[in-house]
Amino acid sequence: MKSDTEIVVRYAETDQMKVVHHSVYPIWFEAARTDYMEKLGYPYARIEKEGIMLPLARLQCDFREGARYGDTVLVKLSIKKLTPARLEIKYTAHRKSDGALLAEGETLHAWTDHNLKVINLKKLAPELYKLMENEAEK
Amino acid sequence: MKSDTEIVVRYAETDQMKVVHHSVYPIWFEAARTDYMEKLGYPYARIEKEGIMLPLARLQCDFREGARYGDTVLVKLSIKKLTPARLEIKYTAHRKSDGALLAEGETLHAWTDHNLKVINLKKLAPELYKLMENEAEK
Amino acid sequence: MKSDTEIVVRYAETDQMKVVHHSVYPIWFEAARTDYMEKLGYPYARIEKEGIMLPLARLQCDFREGARYGDTVLVKLSIKKLTPARLEIKYTAHRKSDGALLAEGETLHAWTDHNLKVINLKKLAPELYKLMENEAEK
Amino acid sequence: MKSDTEIVVRYAETDQMKVVHHSVYPIWFEAARTDYMEKLGYPYARIEKEGIMLPLARLQCDFREGARYGDTVLVKLSIKKLTPARLEIKYTAHRKSDGALLAEGETLHAWTDHNLKVINLKKLAPELYKLMENEAEK
Repeated sequence: MKSDTEIVVRYAETDQMKVVHHSVYPIWFEAARTDYMEKLGYPYARIEKEGIMLPLARLQCDFREGARYGDTVLVKLSIKKLTPARLEIKYTAHRKSDGALLAEGETLHAWTDHNLKVINLKKLAPELYKLMENEAEK
Repeated sequence: MKSDTEIVVRYAETDQMKVVHHSVYPIWFEAARTDYMEKLGYPYARIEKEGIMLPLARLQCDFREGARYGDTVLVKLSIKKLTPARLEIKYTAHRKSDGALLAEGETLHAWTDHNLKVINLKKLAPELYKLMENEAEK
Repeated sequence: MKSDTEIVVRYAETDQMKVVHHSVYPIWFEAARTDYMEKLGYPYARIEKEGIMLPLARLQCDFREGARYGDTVLVKLSIKKLTPARLEIKYTAHRKSDGALLAEGETLHAWTDHNLKVINLKKLAPELYKLMENEAEK
Repeated sequence: MKSDTEIVVRYAETDQMKVVHHSVYPIWFEAARTDYMEKLGYPYARIEKEGIMLPLARLQCDFREGARYGDTVLVKLSIKKLTPARLEIKYTAHRKSDGALLAEGETLHAWTDHNLKVINLKKLAPELYKLMENEAEK
């Protein structure tokens, strides 16, 4: 599935080092997840309405080059691993103009209910599980 | 009531102009409200647990001088007007080291329930209303 | 000039009231300014490279209805007033799905140099001034 | 060295999951670094004034339990490894009221000049290097 998410750097995202602050990348990764689920036909907003949440258990990110105000950034994601309890996702962020790699990251999520207790996604939302399983196999 | 809230500028709050981004001031004003209600003995977290919310209806802020990384900022607030349906608050932010005025602002809030429908605070939470009324008279 | 900027609500932009936090709207307004200057053919990143900055002197925003995760928001801006020293801009934010008005705001900016000292834009950047003057007249 | 940094959760830091958004932890870690360098007697703002920067090369964080609005959080840091080119730091974030572990993380930084080119800190800022070396040995 085509999953590039195009992000225009916001001025507020820069810091006095004149590059985008590192805390912004997890937000871009999340925007890419939102976009991905939308394109998959099962928006994350719908998932939450069905009582399922996907909190982060782990975040890891390597910063290669600073994104700057004026840049457009392409965030790509791929499903690394899916189990009924967990989801692992990989990301890259590239500068659109020259293709430079800006950052690479991974997130590990738990499938939970609204009280943040871990659930079995395969049982609770078999349609969603099947959809994501197909993606993970790619 | 003594209501100064001391805020150490965070690096992430700066932008490439090397001053704190303007969108941070509403967050500092909010931190000052949290601190104020805590000192008043009726923390805002308790207010929400009792089913009452205080969303913003209007924000206004004048920016006088830029706060910089390395600065400590003092945010003062005072209750401008209280009615059973609304709350108006005034703020100033000064640099601690030299007392320079950085910004002045006002917020207008509605007292609402969890569905963001306006309520009558005087009826629903008379203790809280009384407390704030005393503050507003100062 | 067509100046609608489409913004997909980010999960991180919501707060526990389940709506977008009010401090996010100034960032959306800024994203709309970036987009506007880009469409005008004089990107704000270029303006800064030429030694000109446009810090905020005043912000005012009225919040009508909460934006929610899952919403796409349309931010429109128009130049309210331009002088060689200042720029006033008006904004509206609407929910794309039903056209509901979410917020209306205004910002007042000063044209300054890199030391945040006010300049005369008409003299220092006549081409940019002319471009924006045409916009302000619409 | 005593390096606990006390952080009051800000309302804006929560998301609609009613916990603090994960992107906030890197900002808290950074606030802890600011506090740590201040207590060490060599504020980070001074380091930057001397032409030295400390951009992030890698971030890793494990999220154990959600911080909530109303919580005070204690962030502890310790120097894991120092070389003339790099700095590794470890962090924990605990809820103050009950001591619950909220998150654990690590950051890897490069010592650079203002153009983000790697420098040799031991040669360029021997006093600072010595100070931090003593800390790293603890």
